[in-house]
Amino acid sequence: MSEVRELSDAEKTFLEPYLPPRAADGRKEAATHNVREQHGETAETVQTDGGGLPFVTLTYASSLDSMISLAPGIRTTLSGPETKSMTHFLRMHHDAILIGVGTAIPDNPGLNSRYLGATLDSQPRPVVVDPKMRWDVDSSKLAQLAQEGQGKAPWLIHTRHELGEEALRGWGGRRVFLPSEAAPTGQTSESAKCETIAWSTILKTLKRDGVDSVMVEGGATVISTLLSMPELVNTVIVTIAPTWLGQGGVTVSPAPKVQAGERVNAAKLQGTVWRQFGADAVLCGRLQV
Amino acid sequence: MSEVRELSDAEKTFLEPYLPPRAADGRKEAATHNVREQHGETAETVQTDGGGLPFVTLTYASSLDSMISLAPGIRTTLSGPETKSMTHFLRMHHDAILIGVGTAIPDNPGLNSRYLGATLDSQPRPVVVDPKMRWDVDSSKLAQLAQEGQGKAPWLIHTRHELGEEALRGWGGRRVFLPSEAAPTGQTSESAKCETIAWSTILKTLKRDGVDSVMVEGGATVISTLLSMPELVNTVIVTIAPTWLGQGGVTVSPAPKVQAGERVNAAKLQGTVWRQFGADAVLCGRLQV
Ligand SMILES: NC(=O)c1ccc[n+]([C@@H]2O[C@H](COP(=O)([O-])OP(=O)(O)OC[C@H]3O[C@@H](n4cnc5c(N)ncnc54)[C@H](OP(=O)(O)O)[C@@H]3O)[C@@H](O)[C@H]2O)c1
Ligand SMILES: NC(=O)c1ccc[n+]([C@@H]2O[C@H](COP(=O)([O-])OP(=O)(O)OC[C@H]3O[C@@H](n4cnc5c(N)ncnc54)[C@H](OP(=O)(O)O)[C@@H]3O)[C@@H](O)[C@H]2O)c1
Repeated sequence: MSEVRELSDAEKTFLEPYLPPRAADGRKEAATHNVREQHGETAETVQTDGGGLPFVTLTYASSLDSMISLAPGIRTTLSGPETKSMTHFLRMHHDAILIGVGTAIPDNPGLNSRYLGATLDSQPRPVVVDPKMRWDVDSSKLAQLAQEGQGKAPWLIHTRHELGEEALRGWGGRRVFLPSEAAPTGQTSESAKCETIAWSTILKTLKRDGVDSVMVEGGATVISTLLSMPELVNTVIVTIAPTWLGQGGVTVSPAPKVQAGERVNAAKLQGTVWRQFGADAVLCGRLQV
Repeated sequence: MSEVRELSDAEKTFLEPYLPPRAADGRKEAATHNVREQHGETAETVQTDGGGLPFVTLTYASSLDSMISLAPGIRTTLSGPETKSMTHFLRMHHDAILIGVGTAIPDNPGLNSRYLGATLDSQPRPVVVDPKMRWDVDSSKLAQLAQEGQGKAPWLIHTRHELGEEALRGWGGRRVFLPSEAAPTGQTSESAKCETIAWSTILKTLKRDGVDSVMVEGGATVISTLLSMPELVNTVIVTIAPTWLGQGGVTVSPAPKVQAGERVNAAKLQGTVWRQFGADAVLCGRLQV
């Protein structure tokens, strides 16, 4: 387990404008949301209740060929010690960390913050989107950390006809059941098995339950999908490692976008800042609406 | 046509260690080649004749999802004005600029340097690798610029049984014919049509003809292939624009690499430095052998 070091003042100053807002007493507070002009270049940040949405930060570590793992199910170390420390710093600044079940199963991640001074109270809530209950939470690292008091107990998001929630045995986590989106017309029997929950529903449910800020950490499907939803995402923080994983790896790339019959860029950042962290770079920005 | 501005001293200092060496009299000179320990992490740079090879710089501008164009044949602007100026600065520091025919046909690029103070003498030689003579050079922008004295006349690399070369009508360019590599065994009739020239042959031929430094500018096939050939490449300079083009674009990614039955990173940079140029970042480094 690599050491987590404190960030320098310059590094903190670099990240600060992209972090969720904090209450005057230092606690995490209600989200600041961007009110953007639909076609303009400028983004104005105003204090609102976020329309019932939490502040959302997308973060991931990628290779130069936009891959986050060598192959599905292979956990691949991309960030160096400097950017790893940044991840633990960022986790401490969010109420929740969200991942998809495609990451939970192969990576079995801890999702807690080992940053200096992190207490159980300042730990983020782990949230796993697992519509079909594929993941065995009881034997997970998240369950272990929660039982040892080193992380908060996870929340699992499933889909089911009868909505509601259920406590996880003994150690404080819970399962939340949300509706799946209407199946697209003309679906095949294969896609009928796919149970997609609207991201606005997932995020509003978290907000309702006291989560004012969510750091979305992966994996490829979750990040690629949310990159096309600038109305739900406040900031994007990408770590880029100076390596190419090579064809066939797990790629982050949003769905293509077509306007007036022509392909256009699928997503763009504005207000971008870059900084070298060790051998890697970190990019912060806000998605253009 | 966007304005090309002079780079700041800080920008020049940033790029300097990654440029081809210059003779004391300021002219471009013979290549410095990296002598690397086969399995070590350190790279030692010594002055050699480069084993008959020129100094090779790989450069490309990519999106965050490692794409260099929205679709084959669609010219896509990725770099902002700052990184565009850098490209013209880099071109002036190389004897030749090389591209594949897959870029020459759709993009019809100029490949000259519009950097302040560039003279015809300091212009790079455009080189197009076009094994099957698919490209119509006579109606190209390269031919036009050469005729107007704004760029050197292009060299075209083809493959043919009878080797040798031919002058291009009237305006000083030429066609160089090189042998194709032995066809792989078990080839299909489709792959039999593919005429690949060994990169070492292409580069040694350029060196023999007085080219001491080559800037390889694209496209996706050429860059992806050379990323797996650290013994031929001296430095890599990548511009990354804060945008995602979206699935289905033209992607830079080397072939997968397998060691002892397991996938490993296909290519890695060492000695990396990053710098923000406008909204983009520029990464410089050397490929690990
Ligand atoms: N480098 C990094 O920063 C980083 C970070 C995290 C993960 N990773 C890597 O990413 C890879 C996993 O990526 P992935 O794309 O396979 O998995 P993923 O994005 O973690 O999870 C995708 C799955 O989550 C569920 N899901 C996502 N959005 C949903 C929605 N709106 N409604 C309902 N269900 C939803 C679906 O589960 P069902 O399939 O059950 O429908 C979907 O297949 C792993 O190799 C991991 O190592 C890398
Ligand atoms: N953003 C940027 O920095 C940038 C820069 C340049 C290009 N681009 C984009 O890249 C795209 C083109 O990429 P591409 O992959 O299609 O084309 P490419 O890499 O420019 O050219 C590939 C072709 O060159 C020939 N070739 C390459 N290596 C060879 C070798 N060793 N021996 C013999 N022939 C060789 C082959 O021609 P044959 O097919 O005839 O065998 C091959 O198909 C375009 O969309 C362009 O806009 C972007």
